[in-house]
Amino acid sequence: MTLLTTSKEPLRGIVPPMITPLHADGSLDSASVEKLIEHLIAGGVHGIFILGTTGEFSGLSYQTRRDLITQTCSQVGDRVPVLVGVTDVSIEESIALAEFSANAGAYAVVVAPPFYNNIDQKELTHFYLQLADAISLPMFLYNMPSHTKLVIEVDTVIELSAHERIIGLKDSSAHAVYFQSLCHAFRNQPNFVLMVGPEEMMAETVLMGGFGGVCGGANLFPELYVALYVAAENKDFETMKVCQGAVMEISRNIYQVGQYKSSYMKGLKTSMSFLGLCEAQFASPLYPFSDSEVEELRSRFEVIAADLTQLSL
Amino acid sequence: MTLLTTSKEPLRGIVPPMITPLHADGSLDSASVEKLIEHLIAGGVHGIFILGTTGEFSGLSYQTRRDLITQTCSQVGDRVPVLVGVTDVSIEESIALAEFSANAGAYAVVVAPPFYNNIDQKELTHFYLQLADAISLPMFLYNMPSHTKLVIEVDTVIELSAHERIIGLKDSSAHAVYFQSLCHAFRNQPNFVLMVGPEEMMAETVLMGGFGGVCGGANLFPELYVALYVAAENKDFETMKVCQGAVMEISRNIYQVGQYKSSYMKGLKTSMSFLGLCEAQFASPLYPFSDSEVEELRSRFEVIAADLTQLSL
Amino acid sequence: MTLLTTSKEPLRGIVPPMITPLHADGSLDSASVEKLIEHLIAGGVHGIFILGTTGEFSGLSYQTRRDLITQTCSQVGDRVPVLVGVTDVSIEESIALAEFSANAGAYAVVVAPPFYNNIDQKELTHFYLQLADAISLPMFLYNMPSHTKLVIEVDTVIELSAHERIIGLKDSSAHAVYFQSLCHAFRNQPNFVLMVGPEEMMAETVLMGGFGGVCGGANLFPELYVALYVAAENKDFETMKVCQGAVMEISRNIYQVGQYKSSYMKGLKTSMSFLGLCEAQFASPLYPFSDSEVEELRSRFEVIAADLTQLSL
Amino acid sequence: MTLLTTSKEPLRGIVPPMITPLHADGSLDSASVEKLIEHLIAGGVHGIFILGTTGEFSGLSYQTRRDLITQTCSQVGDRVPVLVGVTDVSIEESIALAEFSANAGAYAVVVAPPFYNNIDQKELTHFYLQLADAISLPMFLYNMPSHTKLVIEVDTVIELSAHERIIGLKDSSAHAVYFQSLCHAFRNQPNFVLMVGPEEMMAETVLMGGFGGVCGGANLFPELYVALYVAAENKDFETMKVCQGAVMEISRNIYQVGQYKSSYMKGLKTSMSFLGLCEAQFASPLYPFSDSEVEELRSRFEVIAADLTQLSL
Repeated sequence: MTLLTTSKEPLRGIVPPMITPLHADGSLDSASVEKLIEHLIAGGVHGIFILGTTGEFSGLSYQTRRDLITQTCSQVGDRVPVLVGVTDVSIEESIALAEFSANAGAYAVVVAPPFYNNIDQKELTHFYLQLADAISLPMFLYNMPSHTKLVIEVDTVIELSAHERIIGLKDSSAHAVYFQSLCHAFRNQPNFVLMVGPEEMMAETVLMGGFGGVCGGANLFPELYVALYVAAENKDFETMKVCQGAVMEISRNIYQVGQYKSSYMKGLKTSMSFLGLCEAQFASPLYPFSDSEVEELRSRFEVIAADLTQLSL
Repeated sequence: MTLLTTSKEPLRGIVPPMITPLHADGSLDSASVEKLIEHLIAGGVHGIFILGTTGEFSGLSYQTRRDLITQTCSQVGDRVPVLVGVTDVSIEESIALAEFSANAGAYAVVVAPPFYNNIDQKELTHFYLQLADAISLPMFLYNMPSHTKLVIEVDTVIELSAHERIIGLKDSSAHAVYFQSLCHAFRNQPNFVLMVGPEEMMAETVLMGGFGGVCGGANLFPELYVALYVAAENKDFETMKVCQGAVMEISRNIYQVGQYKSSYMKGLKTSMSFLGLCEAQFASPLYPFSDSEVEELRSRFEVIAADLTQLSL
Repeated sequence: MTLLTTSKEPLRGIVPPMITPLHADGSLDSASVEKLIEHLIAGGVHGIFILGTTGEFSGLSYQTRRDLITQTCSQVGDRVPVLVGVTDVSIEESIALAEFSANAGAYAVVVAPPFYNNIDQKELTHFYLQLADAISLPMFLYNMPSHTKLVIEVDTVIELSAHERIIGLKDSSAHAVYFQSLCHAFRNQPNFVLMVGPEEMMAETVLMGGFGGVCGGANLFPELYVALYVAAENKDFETMKVCQGAVMEISRNIYQVGQYKSSYMKGLKTSMSFLGLCEAQFASPLYPFSDSEVEELRSRFEVIAADLTQLSL
Repeated sequence: MTLLTTSKEPLRGIVPPMITPLHADGSLDSASVEKLIEHLIAGGVHGIFILGTTGEFSGLSYQTRRDLITQTCSQVGDRVPVLVGVTDVSIEESIALAEFSANAGAYAVVVAPPFYNNIDQKELTHFYLQLADAISLPMFLYNMPSHTKLVIEVDTVIELSAHERIIGLKDSSAHAVYFQSLCHAFRNQPNFVLMVGPEEMMAETVLMGGFGGVCGGANLFPELYVALYVAAENKDFETMKVCQGAVMEISRNIYQVGQYKSSYMKGLKTSMSFLGLCEAQFASPLYPFSDSEVEELRSRFEVIAADLTQLSL
């Protein structure tokens, strides 16, 4: 990984927030991890991000997290960069996971703000700098206000970007003004990586100067999201329109079964089980769909899968 | 206006949410209204929206609102469509203003959800349908969750769009996933107008199929926003980049003096006073900047105005 | 009313936020207004508050508001103080309603913060002082963050209380720390009236030094709330327990039919229709319960009404 | 501890959420832990709750948490019940800490909802039942919406209370209607313990049937909070008023230095350092007050400490 981490080339493209395959008893499904990684790399992704929100990091034991880090880094090797979410409420546990990731060969860590206490921007800055000083890998900030209750404000990002190990930010706020404000603030620092989480807005941010997307749906159909990213990079509006339409169909149909706050997570992972990529098992407090919900999802999924076949990406 | 309202051509482009020029005593500054309208039309705007949030509708008496409607419709004539905000907590007052607007010659009304009580989507739908049935002008929905405490959900918009008088939506949520979801939902109804409020995201939404923007900064520099819109329409990324940079400079400098929740409103209107377009007077509860804030704003403004001159839009 | 308004005795007790009886077409049901006022006064209430949130002020036209003010003040006469909600987003309309209320013989006005724009405490202070300067009646502040999106902070209340016409505050936040903080801040200003909205917490605040409650349920069963207030004043824990139990049964059963954000309003007004006190008609955007919801409510109501008869208040 | 856990007598009184004494390097300050425990027991507290929000649980490593559990249970012995916060986002880590606590001799565990993902009541119920099934100690629910983003709704509490190991709830919402609704719902289950967090509302809830308070200020002045609790239990309004006044002075002066979201935590722990009970050191992301803030706090603290001496509790 030495070449990657010392490279001047910033990360760009599709970096799926990999779901964590689990058995019904909550233990790691290593066989599915292996299958899923090959599925993603075969799909052309530009990196793999484990232990993010979509990876259900918060519901996993530390042992499971370490097992996943080890397996992923080992299996991926030098093929694409591996990013590891080490978000935690305890800075000591974050540091420990970050150093474990460094030893495993990860490319970088990704860190959302500490998410229990309500804190101010100054405290947040203090936290991130203390963490960056204590670890050896590059770090991405992770803006996720719906989960952490605070925004990493633009001025805070600017201040933090002066730290040599803070190399980018993933924004999952879906707030277009915030993201454009970051793009503008960093217009003269072209190596500071700015990616978005929500796949529905990935293409437009790439058109406006963004670096790509951490798209959950790329777990399912990596080629589609890679094709959308490439089309946006190339300003190929014809292809973009087709791919964006498919992405929106997934968003509307796969992520909205039931009226759960977790419909996205349940719809995504259950659809992946239809492809044999994992079991439809979740870390607590999530639990599987009911049978009728599974059937509703399956019929929606089949329409989308058939349509995607037509696209011949 | 008959031609306009029966036209099949949906509204597109830059429709500034016109600020309301006021005297220090709170009364309408009609001379400035006249000057401002000519400034906007000379700047190439595609419509004028009065009595929106930027127009401080909520702080104005009903008499002032009616005076502004009459003057604006009369002065604008057939040159561009006039949209009138008739948002109110009382449906009867909304209807009365809408009919007054119709008689004055307005093109359409714009209505945010009733914003005092906390209500459900079904109640919201009931409200909008009752209102649409009672008025004679076309209506735009106005999604403004930061002010009204609720989102007009995508399914609600779909249901409401079946009403012949509900012809579009202005989204000021800045939520890119929401807006893309609307664009996708209406991909086969190309006459349903989808515009965004926040100017920072206008260009990207036009690239993705949006109809334009209700951009506050167009009160100040209409040519800039029109140029940005046209560049986005034409996929002229070179020009877009330059204009977007200028728009972001305005966003970062003009709208962020002081730590007020109202910094946008105060920065915009006070900057307009520098151009002689209005006085820096506000409807209560807003009040003018302090002298030092005005000077801080002025020095920022002068840099931006000088830069814009270079652009020769 | 001269005696009342110049009296040194602060308001104490139960001041129901009177519902506004309406016909199906939205017009004022004056016959029910008359009946309801007599019902309340016969029930022993210590004041009547019209045009509050429970009075659906925001959904009424200005003409309806003025009609209600006139009728209520005239019919109540000197029997109890009449408080009038003149909350509005436009200070000019608030002032106009306040002066209309003064002429009609009201005791005081009640004003929640302007509720459309997001504002700061300094702007809020500016608004309240400007309003207090412009009117002739005493004024109660009205803390209602769920509807207005901001809290009138304790320091703001302290600052505002220096104005001679600002004589108290009604707190509908249900936030016990906030209310105790106010009680402590005003421990040496025993004439500054501090009342709570939520009836479920009225008794405990009276035990701790509060002045009483603006209890919605007192529209239905005024004697119950008066008895609870008197028991709390007298530290009669035996009676308090019985009455508090009844109040909580109302809260749990009458206010929670359906899963509406408006279940309180619909349950209260519909129950009042069972007593013949009004029709179950609402200002838009609310609309009546379905038939099955009415029957569900009716069966709950009958249990409660029967239990209350047993209490022989 | 066998007697305690099998006892039918529910917990009542003052159970301080013990702060966690730390050294500047973040390690546990065991000498201060010892001193603090004796300070609390000498002050008459009815239990000790470690690793709550005030105990900065979220900022501590698991090793530090285990060290604190071991030391506290061992030192306290049978003198008062020890409650241990085992809130976590991972159910496996919660279970591990709960079993560790059981082995150390704790009385019960306290668990707030998993606080990263946004979840529904059904998922929350699923989580709590799964946890309760997996552990051997009794469990208190911990309602803390400002930190966990969701309320444990009354109906959820009722459903969960059917589990034999779920024996009570600590409510830190400060929402008086919520707490009264719980008191009413459990009026016929007198062993289900209902306590509040915010000390400003403790007395009134005890008057209304609550079981006591988990009061942060009792770290500093345990006698004061015990005296207030006893006075409320005895309906001794004279003493209650004096003690409540002192508690409110602490709330207003000690917890509100600076404009930090963490002013409570910083003010409390720094004041404790004035008494020699711990160092003014915090778990990241919190950091110490500046010198001038310390001096501001010290002058406020000295007034309060002097006043308390007068009370001779």
